[in-house]
Amino acid sequence: MARMKPHTLSGFMELLPEEQKKMQRLMNTIEESYALYGYTPLDTPVLESSEVLLAKAGGETEKQIYRFSKGDTDLAMRFDLTVPLAKYVAMHYGELTFPFRRYQIGKVYRGERAQRGRFREFYQADIDMIGDGKLDIMNEAEIPAVIYRTFSTLGLKNFRIRVNNRKVLNGFFALLGLTERSTDVMRTIDKLDKIGAEKVGAALQEECGVEADKAEEILRFITCPGSSKDKLAFLRGYQGRDEVFDAGLDELATVVNYVASFGVPEENFEVDLTIARGLDYYTGTVYETVLTDHPEVGSVCSGGRYDNLAEYYTDKQLPGVGISIGVTRLFYVLQEQAMLSEELLTAPAEAVIIPMGDVRAFAVEAATVLRAAGIKTQVYFEEKKFKQKIGYADKSGVPFAVIVGEDECAKGVLGVKDMQSGEQRELTPSEAAAYINSQLAARRNCTVIRG
Amino acid sequence: MARMKPHTLSGFMELLPEEQKKMQRLMNTIEESYALYGYTPLDTPVLESSEVLLAKAGGETEKQIYRFSKGDTDLAMRFDLTVPLAKYVAMHYGELTFPFRRYQIGKVYRGERAQRGRFREFYQADIDMIGDGKLDIMNEAEIPAVIYRTFSTLGLKNFRIRVNNRKVLNGFFALLGLTERSTDVMRTIDKLDKIGAEKVGAALQEECGVEADKAEEILRFITCPGSSKDKLAFLRGYQGRDEVFDAGLDELATVVNYVASFGVPEENFEVDLTIARGLDYYTGTVYETVLTDHPEVGSVCSGGRYDNLAEYYTDKQLPGVGISIGVTRLFYVLQEQAMLSEELLTAPAEAVIIPMGDVRAFAVEAATVLRAAGIKTQVYFEEKKFKQKIGYADKSGVPFAVIVGEDECAKGVLGVKDMQSGEQRELTPSEAAAYINSQLAARRNCTVIRG
Repeated sequence: MARMKPHTLSGFMELLPEEQKKMQRLMNTIEESYALYGYTPLDTPVLESSEVLLAKAGGETEKQIYRFSKGDTDLAMRFDLTVPLAKYVAMHYGELTFPFRRYQIGKVYRGERAQRGRFREFYQADIDMIGDGKLDIMNEAEIPAVIYRTFSTLGLKNFRIRVNNRKVLNGFFALLGLTERSTDVMRTIDKLDKIGAEKVGAALQEECGVEADKAEEILRFITCPGSSKDKLAFLRGYQGRDEVFDAGLDELATVVNYVASFGVPEENFEVDLTIARGLDYYTGTVYETVLTDHPEVGSVCSGGRYDNLAEYYTDKQLPGVGISIGVTRLFYVLQEQAMLSEELLTAPAEAVIIPMGDVRAFAVEAATVLRAAGIKTQVYFEEKKFKQKIGYADKSGVPFAVIVGEDECAKGVLGVKDMQSGEQRELTPSEAAAYINSQLAARRNCTVIRG
Repeated sequence: MARMKPHTLSGFMELLPEEQKKMQRLMNTIEESYALYGYTPLDTPVLESSEVLLAKAGGETEKQIYRFSKGDTDLAMRFDLTVPLAKYVAMHYGELTFPFRRYQIGKVYRGERAQRGRFREFYQADIDMIGDGKLDIMNEAEIPAVIYRTFSTLGLKNFRIRVNNRKVLNGFFALLGLTERSTDVMRTIDKLDKIGAEKVGAALQEECGVEADKAEEILRFITCPGSSKDKLAFLRGYQGRDEVFDAGLDELATVVNYVASFGVPEENFEVDLTIARGLDYYTGTVYETVLTDHPEVGSVCSGGRYDNLAEYYTDKQLPGVGISIGVTRLFYVLQEQAMLSEELLTAPAEAVIIPMGDVRAFAVEAATVLRAAGIKTQVYFEEKKFKQKIGYADKSGVPFAVIVGEDECAKGVLGVKDMQSGEQRELTPSEAAAYINSQLAARRNCTVIRG
C-alpha cells in the first residue's frame, strides 16, 4: 500500500504524553482558580458565521482568520474568546443573571506567519465579568486576586501583577493638551522597558511632536519611583485639574487599597504608569503580569476594563472587565525556560500491576481494589518475560510496580515495588492501596511549575 | 450603529450556564474514569492537512468534511479522534511506550444535514489501547470495566454493555458458506431489535438470498436465549469446525470469564450475538452500550478491537481496542429524557457574599477565607438595595448567601443564609467555611444523572 507520511501542521502544538500531562495540569489549575472566584464555565462553538464573528474585526485580524464556505454558509474559526462571549451575552441577555461571570478555556485560531513560539492554534483561558449597564469598581479590584491565586497555585513565585488605569493616562494627556496625540504617545511610552528613558524622551519629541517640557513631564510621570502608595501620592499632585484624571485616580486608589484584603502580597503587585494595553476598548483598569526572572517573555496574563462588550450586536450597555492567559504560549515559555516541575506525575498510571503466571483473575481483582481507592491503575497483560514487563513499568515512568506471582496469589498479597527507591513490600490489596495513596500524596499535590 | 443580529450556527450546541455546568460535570466524570484505568490524556489539533486526514476516508465522510484552503495549504477539520490518533502513533512510534493507552475528549466536525439531535460540532470521548505488533485479549476483557465504571459514576443504573466477537460471526458465516454475503447478512441481523425475528428471517431469504434452512439457523443463532454463560455453551456446539470461529469463541469466553473480576455486575453485561458494528475494521470483540429504559436511543458507547490502526501511515502492525462516547449527543439525550440531576450545583458560585454598608474590606477578607477553604465564592459588589442583592443570590441559584452588615462587621461575624431552607446563622468566617463545606459535601458528590 502507498503510505502517506504523517505530519502535523506547523504552528499547531502536539505534545508527547509526559508534556501533555503537564499541559493538562496547567489548564486544570487555571480552571480551578477561575471557578473558585465564582466564574461559570462557558463553551461556545469553534466555528461561527463569518458575519457574526467579523462584525467588529478588521485589519490584521481579518487577514489572519481561517474563513471558508461550506454549502452557502460563510464560516470562520474563532480568533479569540471575546467576540463569542459578546455574541453569547447579546443573544442570551434575557436569560442571564448580571453581573455575568464566566470563564472559558478553549482553542482559538490565527493564521499568523509561522515562527518559533508562535502558534496558529492555541488555548486561551479567559475570565470576564459583565455588568448590565453598570459594573462596580470593586470588581476591577478583585482581578489581581484571581491572577495571584492562579499563578501562585501553579507554583510560580517570582511574578508581578502590574496595574494602571486608562483614565489616569487619558486625563494626564488631556492636562498636557496631548489628547489627539495620545495613541502615539502611549505607544512610545510602552517602550520604556526596552529602550530606556532617554530614548523615550527623544522619541516623544521627534516622533510624536511633543514639546520638550511636556516630554520631560511625561518622563517624570511614567518613571515615578516608589511603592504603589507612593505613586498614588505622586498622582494626587495632579488632582482637581481634570475630571477624567480624578475619576481614574479614585479607581486606581480603590484597586490599590483592597489588594491586601484580597490576599495579594505586596511583592506580587505594583502600579505601573507605563501600561496602556494596545486595545482601544480598554477604558479603566488595565492589567499585565510579568515573570520577574524572565521579563523578556512579556506579559503572560493581561486584560482590563471595557465599557461596551457587545455594541456590534445589541444596544444594551454592557461594561465588563476581563483577563486572558495565552495558555499554549505560557506552556511553551515554561518549557523553554525549564520551569516545569520534574516531580509531577506524568506516567499514564500510578501503579502498573504485573501478573506472572496463571494469576490473572487475582491481578484483575487487585486492580479493581486499587482503582476503587482512586489509584490510576493499569494491568500489564502482554505475554512477556519478567524483565520486559518490569522494563515497561520503568520506561513508562510509573511510580509503583505491583508484582503478582503465583506465590503472592496463593497468599493473597501483592509485591509493591517503589520504582524510585527499588524497595519492595508485601501487602494485601487494601494495604497496598493505602500505602500507594500515602506515598503519592505529596507528588499528586506538587505544582506544575518548579517551586 | 448598524447592528448585526447575533446567532449561533444550526447544529452547534451552545448551552446556558446551568446546562453547561452539567455538561462540564459529564465530561469531567468521563475523563476521571478513563484516567483511573491508566489512560494518558492526548490532545491533537482540530485542523490537519487534508492529505493526512483523508488518507483513508472516502464516501460519506469526505462529503461531510469541513475542508478549505488557506494560502497554499489544503486543510480539514477532524471528523473523529481515531485518524488523528493513527497519525500521532505513526509519527511518534519511536517515542511512545507500548501498549500505548490514551484518552482524548475533543470536538469533531461533520457537516451533516441539520436535524434535531444531530450535531455538526460535537464532543467525542475516546479511549484506545494500541499494541506494538500484538495486543493481549485481556485488554479487550478490560473495556467493559471502563464502560461500567464510567456510566455508573455518572449515576446511571439501567444500562447494559453488550459484547460480541466479529470472529465468532465471521466463523459462523463461513460454516454456513455465507462468507461472501456476510456484510448483507450482518446488516439484516442488526435490525432484529427493530423489526423482529420473523421479518429478519424473511429479509435474509429475500434480500440476502440465504436458503431457508440457513436463514433459520441464523435466526436460532442470534436469538439464542439465556445468560452470557448459556450463550457460550450454545456456541460450543459449533466448536471444532472453523478455526476463526474457535478463536473468536475463546476470546469471547475470556471476556465473559473475567467480567466479575473486573467488578462489572452481571445485570450490566451481556453477550449479544446480533452486534456487528458497521465499521469494516473491527476484527475481534465489539461493544455497544444501551440505556435499558430508552432502547430507542441506540448505543451510547461503542467500539471494538481492530488489527491495524495506522496502515495508511506506517508499515508497523498496530492492533488496538477502543471505545467512543458521543458526549454531545449523550448530553442531548439525557436532557431530552429529563435524566439530568436537579440536585447538581449549577450556580457559578457556592456562596455569594452580600456587603451592606461600609464593610467592603471585611467582606473581601471573608471571601478570601472561604476561597482558601475551597468554597467557590463571589462578592456581590454592585450598589443596590438589600432586596435586589438577595434577589440576585436567589436568581443565581447559589446555595448560600453570606450577609455582611455593619453590625456583623463590628462583631467579626457573617450572616450565613441557607437559600433553600431560609435558615440563617451567625458565624465567624472560618466557622462559616466549615459549615458551608459540610452542608455542600453531599451535593458536590451528587451524580450528573438522576439516581
